[in-house]
Amino acid sequence: MIALRVNTSGLHIADVPAPSDSGEVLVKVSLSGICNTDLEIVKGYAGFQGTIGHEFVGVAQNGELAGRRVVGEINAGCGTCLECSTGDRRHCARRSVLGIGGRDGAHAEYVSLPHRNLIEVPDNVPDEMAVFVEPLAAACEILDQVALPESAEIAVLGDGKLGLLVGQALRAAGHRVHQFGRHKEKLRIAEKAGVTTEIARARLPVAVYDWVVEATGSSDGLRQAVQMTRPRGTVFMKSTVHGKVPLDTAPVIVHEISLVGSRCGRFEPALRLLANGRIQVEEMISEILSLSDAPRAFRLAQQSGVLKVLLADSGK
Amino acid sequence: MIALRVNTSGLHIADVPAPSDSGEVLVKVSLSGICNTDLEIVKGYAGFQGTIGHEFVGVAQNGELAGRRVVGEINAGCGTCLECSTGDRRHCARRSVLGIGGRDGAHAEYVSLPHRNLIEVPDNVPDEMAVFVEPLAAACEILDQVALPESAEIAVLGDGKLGLLVGQALRAAGHRVHQFGRHKEKLRIAEKAGVTTEIARARLPVAVYDWVVEATGSSDGLRQAVQMTRPRGTVFMKSTVHGKVPLDTAPVIVHEISLVGSRCGRFEPALRLLANGRIQVEEMISEILSLSDAPRAFRLAQQSGVLKVLLADSGK
Repeated sequence: MIALRVNTSGLHIADVPAPSDSGEVLVKVSLSGICNTDLEIVKGYAGFQGTIGHEFVGVAQNGELAGRRVVGEINAGCGTCLECSTGDRRHCARRSVLGIGGRDGAHAEYVSLPHRNLIEVPDNVPDEMAVFVEPLAAACEILDQVALPESAEIAVLGDGKLGLLVGQALRAAGHRVHQFGRHKEKLRIAEKAGVTTEIARARLPVAVYDWVVEATGSSDGLRQAVQMTRPRGTVFMKSTVHGKVPLDTAPVIVHEISLVGSRCGRFEPALRLLANGRIQVEEMISEILSLSDAPRAFRLAQQSGVLKVLLADSGK
Repeated sequence: MIALRVNTSGLHIADVPAPSDSGEVLVKVSLSGICNTDLEIVKGYAGFQGTIGHEFVGVAQNGELAGRRVVGEINAGCGTCLECSTGDRRHCARRSVLGIGGRDGAHAEYVSLPHRNLIEVPDNVPDEMAVFVEPLAAACEILDQVALPESAEIAVLGDGKLGLLVGQALRAAGHRVHQFGRHKEKLRIAEKAGVTTEIARARLPVAVYDWVVEATGSSDGLRQAVQMTRPRGTVFMKSTVHGKVPLDTAPVIVHEISLVGSRCGRFEPALRLLANGRIQVEEMISEILSLSDAPRAFRLAQQSGVLKVLLADSGK
């Protein structure tokens, strides 16, 4: 099969054997999504080598789900440690992570995952929506981490792929969301979901929000987010950035701000939101290209103004 | 009066007029303590110029408390904003901060503060203990910020002045404290308070604690603290460091760790702990020097192995 591989010399399409772990479920990938984390991995993030890609929808080829459309949780836990046995394989210390650590990913014709990682996709959620479950789950994770007050006023910094999902997910949960970004046409997607938007200028509001989500994807975003946060407020850290971020700890300490790292979330609530039509993802798709065209798709995904670029199995 | 001043050319003793704000209380300083924040201010932290020093005990010269021994909360709020009117002048945006921002400090013969900032010191708390109220309140602040489970296992990183107070305060609250430091003789003070101690080696335990207090005072401490924290755990940030700290945000996000900035605390519980003999501070005093000898005291306070250096009013 063909797969999009990353190694020390960069990104390339390769012809590799399909995954063959008989204890797992083989999934024929229908669509996979390019995530900012993929772009950071190409720069060296997580030191990963192999097939990248962790957002996908496909058709199970074996096991109980054979023939069904499925999405897959990206963290494959050991199944026996404290975290796994209490239902949190996302933090299993021995886990592999699809296309990010120790496990080949989904920018390929086939991908393999344990049965427990897969969830069937309802009929009313087409592939083009289902492929957003993984990043939408990551957006919803904020709601699982902290008990936000009802109708909280929340600033979301960034209007990229993840930022727009975060804004919509928080709005769908009844919060008053103010989204700051640099692109009018991206912010328009948030506006349609009932989010108040603002073009981020050089001077952002200072010490105004009790809750701020940093989803800029840039290393300067954390500084800006801290600056926007009221004393004793909370910043959710959502940007995956390769390398070190220079942090002035003084405002964090002086204003007693909490910085909460936030990563993957549960798939079920995200799938429910998509099934109920609460999240608009159609307009977030900038382009669907063939898997064999993946290197071009990656160049496209890096361009300013481009949102989600999807890869379709060439055989589709 | 003489005062220890900092300006762009550094630290020096100067002869200046005593504070004369008739709306405030003048306090004759008996003892003042040199804090790491003082050392960072000399390096440029907070951009402060003026008389430094914010840990003190003295005798009120006017008002209701005239003739009484007092300690003073260092944040002087505007008195009218939302924070001030809800009792949190520590986060008033228009506050001045004793010897740190907009207000001359306590390494001087006299200091001035609003009446509401002052608390009388009980007779059974001698000056040499009372001068620790401010840093002990900062240590206790952790207990006000987060509802720790009973008998929580907490790692404290650092065996400096603040680290030792944090370890003791958490121990006094019934928690199981493991303190990591570089100095046997300092750690012995923690041991006497029932804290388990360990010499910090190049390899510290990885992903072991749900609660970690970073009190190393070094810019590398945060990285180490994050590394010691279990997934979904919490790091309390207690180190005042001038300049930027290079933070690898990946482990914070991947392990969904919370970094909680922690600063000043309420004086009342700290004074109570001292009055009840729950915190040992006598052994933490390395030296008491005359205020006129302050530059030498500062050089001493920077030496490895030295704990609290106190300045006594030369007229005492």
